[in-house]
Amino acid sequence: MKKLVANNQPNFLTRMFANEQIAQIKEIMSSTPHRLDPFFNPQRIAIIGASERGMYPSGVLRNLLDYGYKGEVYPVSLSRETVFGLKAYPDITKTPQTPDLAIIIVPRKAVLATLKQCVQKGVPAAVVITAGFAESDDEGKVLQTKLADFIKTNPITVIGPNCAGLADMHTKAISTRLPVPPKAGTVSFVSQSGALMMALYGLFADRQIGMNRILSLGNQLDVNLSESIAYLVADEKTQVIGTFIEGLQDAPAFANTLQEALIIGKSIILLKSGRTESGQAAAATHTAALAGSAKVFDAVCEQFGAIQVNDISEMMDTLQLAATFGDKLQGAGKIALVTQSGGLGSLSADLVEGFGLIAPPLSKALSQKLLDLPHIPDFGLLANPSDVRGSSVIGEATAETLAPFLNDSDTDAVVLLLAKSAVREQDVETAKSIVDATKSSEKPLIVIWVGQRHPVDDPDWALGHEILREAGIPLFAQASDGLRALSHLFHHWQFREKWLENPTNLQIPERKSKKERENKALSYAENMALLEKYQIPLAPAKLVKNEVDTLVAAQEMGFPVALKAISTELTHKSDAGLVELNLQNADELARAAKRVFERLGGHRIEGLQVQKMLPSGVEVILGISTDPQFGLVLAFGTGGILVELLDDVVLRLPPISETQVREMIKKTKAWRLLQGFRGSPPADIDALVTLIVNLSKMAVEETSTLDGLDLNPVIVLPKGQGAYAVDYRAFR
Amino acid sequence: MKKLVANNQPNFLTRMFANEQIAQIKEIMSSTPHRLDPFFNPQRIAIIGASERGMYPSGVLRNLLDYGYKGEVYPVSLSRETVFGLKAYPDITKTPQTPDLAIIIVPRKAVLATLKQCVQKGVPAAVVITAGFAESDDEGKVLQTKLADFIKTNPITVIGPNCAGLADMHTKAISTRLPVPPKAGTVSFVSQSGALMMALYGLFADRQIGMNRILSLGNQLDVNLSESIAYLVADEKTQVIGTFIEGLQDAPAFANTLQEALIIGKSIILLKSGRTESGQAAAATHTAALAGSAKVFDAVCEQFGAIQVNDISEMMDTLQLAATFGDKLQGAGKIALVTQSGGLGSLSADLVEGFGLIAPPLSKALSQKLLDLPHIPDFGLLANPSDVRGSSVIGEATAETLAPFLNDSDTDAVVLLLAKSAVREQDVETAKSIVDATKSSEKPLIVIWVGQRHPVDDPDWALGHEILREAGIPLFAQASDGLRALSHLFHHWQFREKWLENPTNLQIPERKSKKERENKALSYAENMALLEKYQIPLAPAKLVKNEVDTLVAAQEMGFPVALKAISTELTHKSDAGLVELNLQNADELARAAKRVFERLGGHRIEGLQVQKMLPSGVEVILGISTDPQFGLVLAFGTGGILVELLDDVVLRLPPISETQVREMIKKTKAWRLLQGFRGSPPADIDALVTLIVNLSKMAVEETSTLDGLDLNPVIVLPKGQGAYAVDYRAFR
Repeated sequence: MKKLVANNQPNFLTRMFANEQIAQIKEIMSSTPHRLDPFFNPQRIAIIGASERGMYPSGVLRNLLDYGYKGEVYPVSLSRETVFGLKAYPDITKTPQTPDLAIIIVPRKAVLATLKQCVQKGVPAAVVITAGFAESDDEGKVLQTKLADFIKTNPITVIGPNCAGLADMHTKAISTRLPVPPKAGTVSFVSQSGALMMALYGLFADRQIGMNRILSLGNQLDVNLSESIAYLVADEKTQVIGTFIEGLQDAPAFANTLQEALIIGKSIILLKSGRTESGQAAAATHTAALAGSAKVFDAVCEQFGAIQVNDISEMMDTLQLAATFGDKLQGAGKIALVTQSGGLGSLSADLVEGFGLIAPPLSKALSQKLLDLPHIPDFGLLANPSDVRGSSVIGEATAETLAPFLNDSDTDAVVLLLAKSAVREQDVETAKSIVDATKSSEKPLIVIWVGQRHPVDDPDWALGHEILREAGIPLFAQASDGLRALSHLFHHWQFREKWLENPTNLQIPERKSKKERENKALSYAENMALLEKYQIPLAPAKLVKNEVDTLVAAQEMGFPVALKAISTELTHKSDAGLVELNLQNADELARAAKRVFERLGGHRIEGLQVQKMLPSGVEVILGISTDPQFGLVLAFGTGGILVELLDDVVLRLPPISETQVREMIKKTKAWRLLQGFRGSPPADIDALVTLIVNLSKMAVEETSTLDGLDLNPVIVLPKGQGAYAVDYRAFR
Repeated sequence: MKKLVANNQPNFLTRMFANEQIAQIKEIMSSTPHRLDPFFNPQRIAIIGASERGMYPSGVLRNLLDYGYKGEVYPVSLSRETVFGLKAYPDITKTPQTPDLAIIIVPRKAVLATLKQCVQKGVPAAVVITAGFAESDDEGKVLQTKLADFIKTNPITVIGPNCAGLADMHTKAISTRLPVPPKAGTVSFVSQSGALMMALYGLFADRQIGMNRILSLGNQLDVNLSESIAYLVADEKTQVIGTFIEGLQDAPAFANTLQEALIIGKSIILLKSGRTESGQAAAATHTAALAGSAKVFDAVCEQFGAIQVNDISEMMDTLQLAATFGDKLQGAGKIALVTQSGGLGSLSADLVEGFGLIAPPLSKALSQKLLDLPHIPDFGLLANPSDVRGSSVIGEATAETLAPFLNDSDTDAVVLLLAKSAVREQDVETAKSIVDATKSSEKPLIVIWVGQRHPVDDPDWALGHEILREAGIPLFAQASDGLRALSHLFHHWQFREKWLENPTNLQIPERKSKKERENKALSYAENMALLEKYQIPLAPAKLVKNEVDTLVAAQEMGFPVALKAISTELTHKSDAGLVELNLQNADELARAAKRVFERLGGHRIEGLQVQKMLPSGVEVILGISTDPQFGLVLAFGTGGILVELLDDVVLRLPPISETQVREMIKKTKAWRLLQGFRGSPPADIDALVTLIVNLSKMAVEETSTLDGLDLNPVIVLPKGQGAYAVDYRAFR
């Protein structure tokens, strides 16, 4: 058998993503004009349906006036001469200059006519806040179809309808109604749900997280989620992107965007609904597009290092740390836990381990520095967590206690754990001292403060917390919140570093529709040619036409052999008794061949395959399948009963690099089996990796016609002896 | 082979736990005097070391004076005539009457002398707040040993040292320093960590959760966690118990207490640290006792329906719902989700499914009632989640919208999901309307309100939230918090209902120490007698002395057979080549016997065992092992490679009932294999259940001498054909 060669080009790609290149890519991305630009940086905004009452009709204009938008604003109103003192126009064609952006808040029946006027005026972009379209009744569905037809054939970009608008916190171009003034920063957020975007904006404000752009998409008639995220990835002011997703419209573009974000080092944090049957049903009644397979979605996020979260607080926590610390959360994730509560310390140590972070023992140097401090009790046990007792981390001494940790080169992040309900003055001292400590160090510090913050009888009590918040020190109410967010980000940057060592370049070309490819099983010769072309090794086999030739073939390759009828008419050959295994000699082979012929029941066959029985190895399965959203997907899993019993399968979009293949294998139980389990020898992992890389190449090159391929099982023999597919089935 | 009979007595036990009996048990438990009574209901309290400064020296006395304690208080002070206007005494022997309780806050070197004076005066109970004992330096360890010796031989009960004290919110007997006034209720909390208890007390106050007793244990010199929880379970005013555990001192008592709580229907919610290596190391440096095996601890909690949580908020959320709804969270867990945000709705539907709750479609009757409401938009899609749009759940209409859900007999709990940042007046209306809605229904309602609550610039903004809180309506900041807590409690009550159908009565008798039992392997005859006594079926086997007899035995039982050398000197027989499997005829048997004799290498054997090879079935493993804390533990798991690859094993303390055994099997992957997997026939689950029930009986009856037993594998044959141990090994 020929030596297998992997077909990826790590050197070229590694060079491609060197730091200078990444800077270049970012420069090109952010300087390329985009059709979404007018939404966030318009010179002139028209509000069509402006009024002095109503949440949006009045609120949008008030936001523009109150929060410092520098461009011109044209209220458009059928009934008013002025709105909030600004001259109003009866329709958009009457404005003195052409607006860059129209915000449309008119009755649903008037939306189409309004858009027509916008096009007539030359307005390039419109946000349609108005609801009552496809998300509502039959009339709404008809109206939406008409809108869609109009937008397709006219030079205007539309966000909505049925959306809560959008905002840019730097230009103050606000097409929504922000309940609190904007605070400019580096986080952008895009949401399919308008209500959730507005609720989360409040939470961002609450945590004093600076934002760049927020965007709600509504029914996604024109601009969809994938395009929006891609736009934010390219945006130079955006460093961190949060998104709430119900369903994807353009999955390949979404996957490409995740890859771009990974390469240029922007973190994407996703909250996805519609992950279960109940959630999908709920999403379907709303505005979301096809919710799609949660499994493939998860795999794609994992493949490109996007951070998936499970609920609102986890999203906020992770966004906050990403915004606060940027790419500083790099390294192994060595956490120093400093506390005055042994109980909270041991609880947190459990969580550190559970989240895959590390709390290594303190170095001798660090311990000594601590013991030199006057306020550390000499009986304090200085482990990690360090229980330094109350006097060291409550009140003015805190900064001195934290300094050795913040200056320790062997610590990646410091977590201060306080278990105490607020005690007014002292808390202020503690908070100020914590802020002082962080001034002389770049090392990330978070504070986990378990206890009462907001007693009903005295709202000022929360002052200590406010001081930390205003200083930008992330504050959490329980250990798991802060540690989980740290773990997301440490693992994200670790993943990126590893990924860039041996990257791939995702290519998802256009494919024929499923119907055009409709499940045509390949002939034996076609199967063999396909496997050969991509160097997928098959256990030695020969197709013969009669019983006599089976014996010749078997003697050539040596007993024991397996015998199988080959026919595109018959798919479940084992069930039909058309596969005979472990035939030891000529006699057994002859009888088996006879049985197989008897069982054919008149079906035409291409011939009988005689195949050498492989010695025992680790059984795995490999496959290519078609996802309705993402296209071809590679699958690798543990074989035998485990694949069904555990669903122990990992999915990836092709192509995947050798490094990525190894990571993929490690995520399954097969990894332990392959390393030599219960006394069996280590398996030929290198051969398996090469096989998967070649399969990935096949998926890329054959993507326009291939529909699926099963290699089940693949036997991975002991080290040095190779990995071979035993059974195979491809569809075009 | 004899028919197997299960040895438990379900009828008797079911009767034992009928409702009237449970009431009787509760009555007896709560009326039995207990040595901890004086700590919570003392008539006279002495504070030894009272002062007008210092957190504890002044704070405890202030709490007693300010929060309404009705008994007498004696400050004891060496230096003061009065403290806060009360006459002070130079030592406790000088107080006019004998206090029930002494609170000791003196330097560590004075603690022993103070305790001696307490005994001299006849004080039955003392809380030692003073720290600096075994948790600190060598001198502290010596002092603690002296204290321990004194307490053991004198009539006084001691909590501490190094504790933060305790409190009773009904009697206002407060031996700690509460930062906010007590609010009496049904929740009790016991903590090994003093700082964490104080922090959590603040959180209880924040959520306005009424409490009964809180208790911090410090170094547990006398009163330990198990006794404290048992005391709270017995206490009639306590309905719900929360606890923070670092390590257990008296594990069998702890398990018994969980069982008692389950029987009488009190919920215990546990947060355990020291679950990982890092956490255990951290706990060991503090005051905790041996952290013990997290696995066995988890199994014991699961076995008796105690609710384990992972962090502080989850504990608070679950305690709050348990306190608010008591045993009303019964039934299948059918949740009605009502929302104005489709996005939050679909996210929550995912979480409902993920937490094992149900969001069934709305009944036609309920849908119709909703459509009859004027404010539900006629295009509103009324599924579950019901996206009823903003106008229906924001402002005054909310009560009308919620009413049909709250009156729906097919709904177990209603979850109102709001995604909105606060808008002052409207929020107050919404909150009042929610409170109105709950007045006419007993059905549990929780509110999940995602959005800003506490803007920095206007603290009054949170008023809507305050109204809900004051009305006792549980309020959560994200969906998973509320839904997780609901799921904990629904599953808890479901578990209890099932458990009471076929209960067991936990018995953990005193055992000899491990050293006294030191791993003595049983002889063949002893093994056989033990298996026979408890009707544990073994695959037919015979012990013979020579090669000739192996053939006689094999012919009697029929080929194929296995051959094994039996010797207490040799434990790893397979590795030593002393087991020969699948011998098909006399010839193979003779050669195998020869090989075995050759490999003995001079070791003495009891004989050769000839054993019938069983037909194929499902391989499982069963065992009894010794946990250093809990004693004998039963183990059941999937056999073959799965036990090592997946660690797919469930543990239980004996005895377990038939119902419990079935639930135990269902928790493993073996369950799917036993039901018939990939075309194999369903296995004899009944025989397996009987075997495990009998093994459980063995563990109970032999507990004082048995150290461990392995049945590996046990082959479960097809239905009706039995389950048989193949290999066995017992230790006394």
